Parts: sequence; C-alpha cells; structure tokens
Amino acid sequence: MDRILAELDFAKGDGLVTALAVDDDTGEVLMVAHMNEASLRKTLESGQAVYWSRSRGRLWHKGEESGHVQNVRSVQIDCDGDVVLLRVEQIGGAACHTGRRSCFFRKLSGEGLEDVGVQVFDPEQVYKR
Amino acid sequence: MDRILAELDFAKGDGLVTALAVDDDTGEVLMVAHMNEASLRKTLESGQAVYWSRSRGRLWHKGEESGHVQNVRSVQIDCDGDVVLLRVEQIGGAACHTGRRSCFFRKLSGEGLEDVGVQVFDPEQVYKR
Repeated sequence: MDRILAELDFAKGDGLVTALAVDDDTGEVLMVAHMNEASLRKTLESGQAVYWSRSRGRLWHKGEESGHVQNVRSVQIDCDGDVVLLRVEQIGGAACHTGRRSCFFRKLSGEGLEDVGVQVFDPEQVYKR
Repeated sequence: MDRILAELDFAKGDGLVTALAVDDDTGEVLMVAHMNEASLRKTLESGQAVYWSRSRGRLWHKGEESGHVQNVRSVQIDCDGDVVLLRVEQIGGAACHTGRRSCFFRKLSGEGLEDVGVQVFDPEQVYKR
C-alpha cells in the first residue's frame, strides 16, 4: 500500500487525486470522484471504494446509504500519479445517485443533451431515509 | 454547444472540469486531463480533443507535437456537470506521453506496481524535436 501512496501526487490537487470507477464486467465508466490519502487507505484495506466527499468534507463510503457499494477488483494509477482508476463490481448495478447505472447519462446530440442512461433504481425509494 | 456549456459547472474547479478520454473502439480509459470553457469550445468546433494544460497554462491540442490526435466521436457529461467524457478515435494508437496506449499502465499487484501497459511508440523518437 505504501508503494502506491508514494507514487501518487496528492500535493498537486491540494491533498486530493481524481478517482474513476469503471464497471469491471462491462468496462463502462461509472463515475468520477476524489480521494485523499485516508480514503485510498480505507479503500485498499476494506476492498470497497471509499472516496473523499468534497461537498460533505468527509470520507464517503460509496453505497453507505443506498447499500450500492463498490467491490474493488483492481487499482491502476496514471502516468503522472494524479488519478486512480478502480475497476469495480457495482453492487445493485447503479453508481449514480439518480439511480442510473452510470453518472455519464447525458450525451451531446446535435445542439442538445440526450438522456442515454439506464435507470436501475428509483432514488426516492433508495434515499427515503 | 451553448447547451452543454450551460450544464457544466466550471466554477467548482476554478474554471476547469475534468476530462476523460475513452477509446471508442475498445472502451479502454486512455487518459484524464482538464478542460476550461475555451478548450471545450475548440474541441466541439474542431472535432479533436483540446485540453487545458495546467502545467503549461495554455490550450493543449492533444497530439499537436506527436501527431497522435484524438478524433472525438461522442461527448457525455456526468450528473453534476463537472466531468466531460470523450469517446475518441486515438490516432497512432497511444494516448500516453510514455508511448503506451493508456496512461493507466501501472496496476497495483500485491505490495507493488506492475507495468501492464502496451507500448505503442518510442517517445524518444516521437518527441525528438
């Protein structure tokens, strides 16, 4: 674990690196978030994705509320060490808080944006607490 | 073009959004960079990926030196509008300045990092100017 932490440049992003989750079964990009060193440590120790929530200013165990956790199958880093790519098993089949499989459900089409997302769950049911 | 620009939150990242390039033929994540509004406009107008280089502080037409440009086949944005995902045709077959197909060539393996990259070109030959 220390090896990967040493290769990452947390300083460049004020303590954060970009983190990408890719569905390991389909290759689809599910979401992009951020990690600080503590969240990456938690991720590697637990085997489930733990990000740093910039809006909430705390560690964010992905799926902590919805149950839709991400089991991490592999971890890659990029050439300049400011991005972490997780290949994950997405429990529940959806990564986006809107209930869609991927956060990238809006696609440029002509002059507009087309919703190409696959709706997996109803966020009003999942986040009702 | 104005529609997608209006949906992006450039303010959150001090004028920048994160930009991902995915190989449209294989689905492989090639690289992660940044875009400001001007670079996204250039990308959409030209059909080739133009990023904002933070290190050089200027627009970066990907492949301007190597010739390994990225022809943009589609553009998606994420749920909170701070990431742009480009699906591209990678000319020359490699996105990384190291000559590898993808920038994500280092994979966590046990306690170390394994090089799983596919070497496509010799950077000393390509960047000799």
